[in-house]
Amino acid sequence: MSVTAAPGFVAAGVAAGIKPSGNPDLSLVATADGLPVAAAGVFTRNKMTAAPVITTRAHLEATGGHAVAVVLNSGNANAATGQQGLDDAEAMCASVATELGIDASQVLVCSTGLIGIPMPIDVITAGIPSVVAARSSDGGQSAATAIMTTDTVAKQVVVDGGGFVVGGMAKGAAMLSPNMATMLAVLTTDAAATPEQLKAALVFGVADSFNALDVDGCTSTNDTVLLLASGLAGPVEESALHAAVAEACASLAAQMCADAEGATKVVRMSVIGATSDAEALIGARYVSRSNLVKCSWYGCDPYWGRIASDLGSCGIDFDPSKFSVSYGGVTVCRGAVDADHDAAAVAAHMAGRNLEIVADLGLGSGAATILTNDLSHAYIDENMGTS
Amino acid sequence: MSVTAAPGFVAAGVAAGIKPSGNPDLSLVATADGLPVAAAGVFTRNKMTAAPVITTRAHLEATGGHAVAVVLNSGNANAATGQQGLDDAEAMCASVATELGIDASQVLVCSTGLIGIPMPIDVITAGIPSVVAARSSDGGQSAATAIMTTDTVAKQVVVDGGGFVVGGMAKGAAMLSPNMATMLAVLTTDAAATPEQLKAALVFGVADSFNALDVDGCTSTNDTVLLLASGLAGPVEESALHAAVAEACASLAAQMCADAEGATKVVRMSVIGATSDAEALIGARYVSRSNLVKCSWYGCDPYWGRIASDLGSCGIDFDPSKFSVSYGGVTVCRGAVDADHDAAAVAAHMAGRNLEIVADLGLGSGAATILTNDLSHAYIDENMGTS
Repeated sequence: MSVTAAPGFVAAGVAAGIKPSGNPDLSLVATADGLPVAAAGVFTRNKMTAAPVITTRAHLEATGGHAVAVVLNSGNANAATGQQGLDDAEAMCASVATELGIDASQVLVCSTGLIGIPMPIDVITAGIPSVVAARSSDGGQSAATAIMTTDTVAKQVVVDGGGFVVGGMAKGAAMLSPNMATMLAVLTTDAAATPEQLKAALVFGVADSFNALDVDGCTSTNDTVLLLASGLAGPVEESALHAAVAEACASLAAQMCADAEGATKVVRMSVIGATSDAEALIGARYVSRSNLVKCSWYGCDPYWGRIASDLGSCGIDFDPSKFSVSYGGVTVCRGAVDADHDAAAVAAHMAGRNLEIVADLGLGSGAATILTNDLSHAYIDENMGTS
Repeated sequence: MSVTAAPGFVAAGVAAGIKPSGNPDLSLVATADGLPVAAAGVFTRNKMTAAPVITTRAHLEATGGHAVAVVLNSGNANAATGQQGLDDAEAMCASVATELGIDASQVLVCSTGLIGIPMPIDVITAGIPSVVAARSSDGGQSAATAIMTTDTVAKQVVVDGGGFVVGGMAKGAAMLSPNMATMLAVLTTDAAATPEQLKAALVFGVADSFNALDVDGCTSTNDTVLLLASGLAGPVEESALHAAVAEACASLAAQMCADAEGATKVVRMSVIGATSDAEALIGARYVSRSNLVKCSWYGCDPYWGRIASDLGSCGIDFDPSKFSVSYGGVTVCRGAVDADHDAAAVAAHMAGRNLEIVADLGLGSGAATILTNDLSHAYIDENMGTS
């Protein structure tokens, strides 16, 4: 199910031999009938754009927003690979196109894994016939599994839009940050929509989901969210499509945050009472990136002084006398001074896996929430080497 | 020596009982004759300004830039403490003033330690007579020791300005970031200078030293650098004073970076070839704050792809085709593609404690260097709780 939940799509995942571990590493999502459908994507804003992002953008432009298939590999990001990387991304598309009897521009491509390592393109193209042959309407699970890197679980979602379905899969562990860092997601729907309508639904959907996710402040070279629409359910209300896509994105983002590298806490860090939503977002993101704050979460420590210090230094309007913080709904500081509170209730909240922290600037009605994690020993272990 | 190296100054450090450990926690620096001298300070830009910063600024303003003494405590930052904190900072100054027979406005105050905890002001004021009584011309070492928090060594410096001396002490471990995060430094000199000249020398001196230090991106509520001038050596060239103060600041900043919480690497991260110095600084700071990059340094891994990814996403001008990176002078990537290089030489460099990394954007002549560290298990251990 998941990326194959919407009628009209097939998928598969296989072990092509890209990963030394022998784990699945090559996925395909395609239309069941091999004909092109409307498609749209949103991509990383990193200027160090990976080759598959460049190739996928170019193909969507060449076809006016249509595609038959998406090929995805894990184990190598095909980023910082120069002209050879672009040639390799095109070769992946061409290989799929040959198998399906379509044009290479009708194939989109995503890669995730290490940066700066040449692609084992012969291994990949040798594996493509098998992943194409394996495609089926129940291949969603295997496709979602083969895009995992340091993910510990496959991320999938199905949303019932009321007369249509949005299904999807995603991967993402470390390097999760604004503008969809090292995350890939492929969504499918049976709603009928133009490429422009799909793009609008995606832009709406990622804003409060993937783009509100900030695990470590690093923005990847490869982030891509794609949405393909088979149209088999016929036209739907724009608002219904937006809502269903947003719900799917939110679910996948929450799954990513819960599975972020080394995380022991999933934190909803809200800043309210800011002079604007934009200032609230700056503040929430700054706190979410603060290693001192992240370490205190790891230690189950409601050390609000560090949150105050970060908000005071991030450049937004800030007045200590109006500042308060709550953990799990219990206010621990008012006017930037310790407030009488139920310490046992706060300790119980901090000991849990899901933290709800609200910093109120007391200045206006601006608000923003970032979904983030703590900083743990395991995060360092996962990121101190490439091997 | 150190803060008492310049003729005309005395100092002392004692254990007043602020720290549960019983370690020294109360310091004094004063003029030997108890008369006011020219003084200046630069302070944190954090809007969550700690009480001692507010008090010291007010005293310098009230006296037109003159002071007799500086009282400093470790163990409690007197930050996020509201009106009581301001009262406590004034009480510390008043207590010193009583002992020295001067006005409270002639005393400056610095605090470092935990945020958001009321000051044990009775313990501190009870200790002040003993630290005042202990002051001597060879008290620099004890004063430098009593301002330590998670520092593992006292930081001191003496610079021979050629006819005059600049001496100083500092503390700072975690939370070291731009604009002098959780660092305190007191410098003294026997050069004769006006408060304005001292301020100018400080602003010059901190720019490429304390303000180029970025350990974890967190900016403290308490950062203060003070400079007092006894004038006993008579007037000096402005350029000589600037150079000596800058040298003292650079030495203290390097000592801080070398002793940063949990650090196993001291890294000079340079960005050159930027379209401006300002863009280079944004880039160097962004890379220095990247947890993925910091983890790879901890793992001795020359993973230039992460540096490229950070520079591509930090908002500055970036063109992969012109981008190169070197570690210890060995270029490992050119045009954002792996370059043939001596891998053994790079591995040897990465295994050392001091890393020199240069990222060349290839676009212009803008350059900046940030002094920073790796991210280690020990950093988390030191910051996961307040106890």
